[in-house]
Amino acid sequence: MAERRLRETLLPADIAAVRALVHATGFFSAAEVDIAAELVEETLSRQAASGYRFLLLEQHGVLVGYTCYGEIPGTTGSYDLYWIVVAPGCQGQGFGRWLLRETEARVGALDGRLLYAETSSRAQYAPTHRFYEGAGFHEAARLPDYYAPGDGKVIYAKSLPQPAG
Amino acid sequence: MAERRLRETLLPADIAAVRALVHATGFFSAAEVDIAAELVEETLSRQAASGYRFLLLEQHGVLVGYTCYGEIPGTTGSYDLYWIVVAPGCQGQGFGRWLLRETEARVGALDGRLLYAETSSRAQYAPTHRFYEGAGFHEAARLPDYYAPGDGKVIYAKSLPQPAG
Repeated sequence: MAERRLRETLLPADIAAVRALVHATGFFSAAEVDIAAELVEETLSRQAASGYRFLLLEQHGVLVGYTCYGEIPGTTGSYDLYWIVVAPGCQGQGFGRWLLRETEARVGALDGRLLYAETSSRAQYAPTHRFYEGAGFHEAARLPDYYAPGDGKVIYAKSLPQPAG
Repeated sequence: MAERRLRETLLPADIAAVRALVHATGFFSAAEVDIAAELVEETLSRQAASGYRFLLLEQHGVLVGYTCYGEIPGTTGSYDLYWIVVAPGCQGQGFGRWLLRETEARVGALDGRLLYAETSSRAQYAPTHRFYEGAGFHEAARLPDYYAPGDGKVIYAKSLPQPAG
């Protein structure tokens, strides 16, 4: 496992690396790819003030996955998992679950009580639903036709263990 | 009714007027008052690109209520009612309902299909819940402990009539 490592501090090269990674999945629209890259850029320039945190997974020095998460504005201890992405060639090896577990640990250490993940109700996202359910999330809400007619929003939630004391 | 009028175009003086109005209700935290004023400022400087729209209600030239709404990023035709505020001295006269009805009409004219309003589950918000339910909204989701322990989020939704043709 020595060739795999997690990193929390963004580097300027991550803007292009995240863009390439999100694009490579074939799962996100051009607008979503732009947003993913912009979040990296904004977080690099505004640091903690951006409200976004990143956890990056590198293999042999190459970015192969990441999460982007942060405390939801207006809440105390509710976090949103904005992004979780694993490179197509690295899927099915537990990298996503590892990234999620490590992200949950970091959210818990920040006194996060709840972690939310929003996704689409479309059939294309069935593996995503299974991923969250297998990771201990439950479906907290379902809003039909939210994204577009026939494309609802599913909100998954997970209660995080609270630090002792 | 000649002394009451609706206005959609923001003026620089609205930054202070909205701040004073939101503060006067006694219902919002200092941080929320700041956010309300910042949304006016941002919309004034970025215009339509801000994604926020305003509907202002003036009585004898004084701002006595407003809504702030906009299409939810990443959706097609789902709108969020971010703010609806009526001056304390003008409540109970149907101004809120009028503002909401006029806002719904504008969202519908923009091809909005759904209007969402998020609020707290706390007892303090019972009148807010009755207001939305009386206006034809339904409770679409309830997320316990979302804002803080014991303070959940209630998501109200209303399907809007689609323009003919």
